[in-house]
Amino acid sequence: MAQSARAVDAILEQILPKPHGLHARVQEAMRYAVFAGGKRLRPFLVLESARLFGAKEDGALRAAAAIEALHTYSLVHDDLPCMDDDALRRGRPTAHIAFDEATAVLAGDALLTIAFEILADPATHPSAEVRCQLAARLAQAAGSNGMIGGQMIDMRAQDAAFGANEIMLLQRLKTGQLFEFSCEAGAILGEAGEADRGRLRRYARNMGLVFQITDDLLDVTSTAEKTGKGVGKDQNKGKATLVSIYGVAHARAEAQRLAEAAAEELTLYGAAAARLHAFPFSLLDREA
Amino acid sequence: MAQSARAVDAILEQILPKPHGLHARVQEAMRYAVFAGGKRLRPFLVLESARLFGAKEDGALRAAAAIEALHTYSLVHDDLPCMDDDALRRGRPTAHIAFDEATAVLAGDALLTIAFEILADPATHPSAEVRCQLAARLAQAAGSNGMIGGQMIDMRAQDAAFGANEIMLLQRLKTGQLFEFSCEAGAILGEAGEADRGRLRRYARNMGLVFQITDDLLDVTSTAEKTGKGVGKDQNKGKATLVSIYGVAHARAEAQRLAEAAAEELTLYGAAAARLHAFPFSLLDREA
Repeated sequence: MAQSARAVDAILEQILPKPHGLHARVQEAMRYAVFAGGKRLRPFLVLESARLFGAKEDGALRAAAAIEALHTYSLVHDDLPCMDDDALRRGRPTAHIAFDEATAVLAGDALLTIAFEILADPATHPSAEVRCQLAARLAQAAGSNGMIGGQMIDMRAQDAAFGANEIMLLQRLKTGQLFEFSCEAGAILGEAGEADRGRLRRYARNMGLVFQITDDLLDVTSTAEKTGKGVGKDQNKGKATLVSIYGVAHARAEAQRLAEAAAEELTLYGAAAARLHAFPFSLLDREA
Repeated sequence: MAQSARAVDAILEQILPKPHGLHARVQEAMRYAVFAGGKRLRPFLVLESARLFGAKEDGALRAAAAIEALHTYSLVHDDLPCMDDDALRRGRPTAHIAFDEATAVLAGDALLTIAFEILADPATHPSAEVRCQLAARLAQAAGSNGMIGGQMIDMRAQDAAFGANEIMLLQRLKTGQLFEFSCEAGAILGEAGEADRGRLRRYARNMGLVFQITDDLLDVTSTAEKTGKGVGKDQNKGKATLVSIYGVAHARAEAQRLAEAAAEELTLYGAAAARLHAFPFSLLDREA
């Protein structure tokens, strides 16, 4: 993942506007938020799935950069005082702390906007049909019936008595939709058919739940130093998680089962899918 | 303008998601913000310019709806406590008052996102090249070097000693860029060449300044009842405007000159451009 992270960082460095003029501050905040040492998981998914379908790497890197910009916007807005009110992310002050709230809102808006600018640009793929499909699917995955809808549900999670079904829906929207799109984007870039797209989406859906459960497990068992955020944060806020509902042992077993289900979707692609295949299992041992 | 407003409202009614499920609240807020009795000026510009170039009306209405959704997002975010902190818009509570701050941030995000979903959809234009051009240009017009950059500059306007040049830049970005894109969108939909696009952009640029100056004049001279917002709001906040710099008489003369310059760009199109031609002059007498 480190290799694709470096490659996508180089593209982001090149694509994100250089801070200039009277409005430089918002562009500084965009860069501050993007270059925060993230693992670039979504770019990894785009690049690995693009490779399965023979898509060109330079276009896939741009699509990966677009998704990472959009993901970063969601973090910047989710950290705002009116949302999760987080002062730290990955051990650094969040954007509204390092800059100010207005700048953070605007930087998030601009990162969301530039994601579509990148996808619509001919450099991302020679076929405008492909570019439009990428833009339309990203908008669906990130919109009010996707990621934003998930964050809306999350804002209610403190007050509501959510069970496993509600938590699963929340996660499938809030983080799952963008994972699904990241994997499907590779298939779209490679102009693969619906059967392939469906397999990649199902892989992502199961992998996304592994990601979430292992994140919740980490939240319960790890130290703040390793994760760069407070321990038991969601628990302290009284939010139900799959771990708080299932218990640690059952949650671990469920994560294992889901990792296997994810990997199974990739059987058809053999060794070409080795890294995607291994990824959900690597999450089972994650420490950050 | 009333006719195109009704037509675009019908499309927005159809396109915006019906509130449903655990995340219904964000979709209710999207609709609350969009159906607030706006004049639908940008849709008027899209539809009128599309007509000049023989673009199909159903596609133009969708592009107009996309731009109105994006414009509405910018109002929702600009009204937030950390931005302009406005409790009223068009005489109604702003979105963060009617709902809450988190919901308003998310509804704005979702309106921005859906704008690109609408443009990328094949129903907007049969040519994917055209749809990608619309999406790319909208992203530029609305991004950190466009509308968002303008709002960033506006956030600094209270503290900074801005002269006419800085105010002009602020307005050209904050409101002008979206006016320019609205007019250019019609030319893109009609697959017009760069010469036509340039004329429509220059029309929009001059018209946008007329819009701004007459808005500032209104702010100084009108009553809160007519405009639905506080009188002398920007003045009270100590922000310079073109009117405060030029004085009322000079500002009026400048608006007249700019209206003529805008209209002149349309000479070539004759009677087909009658409504666009008349529009900047109608602003000179505006009361709201």
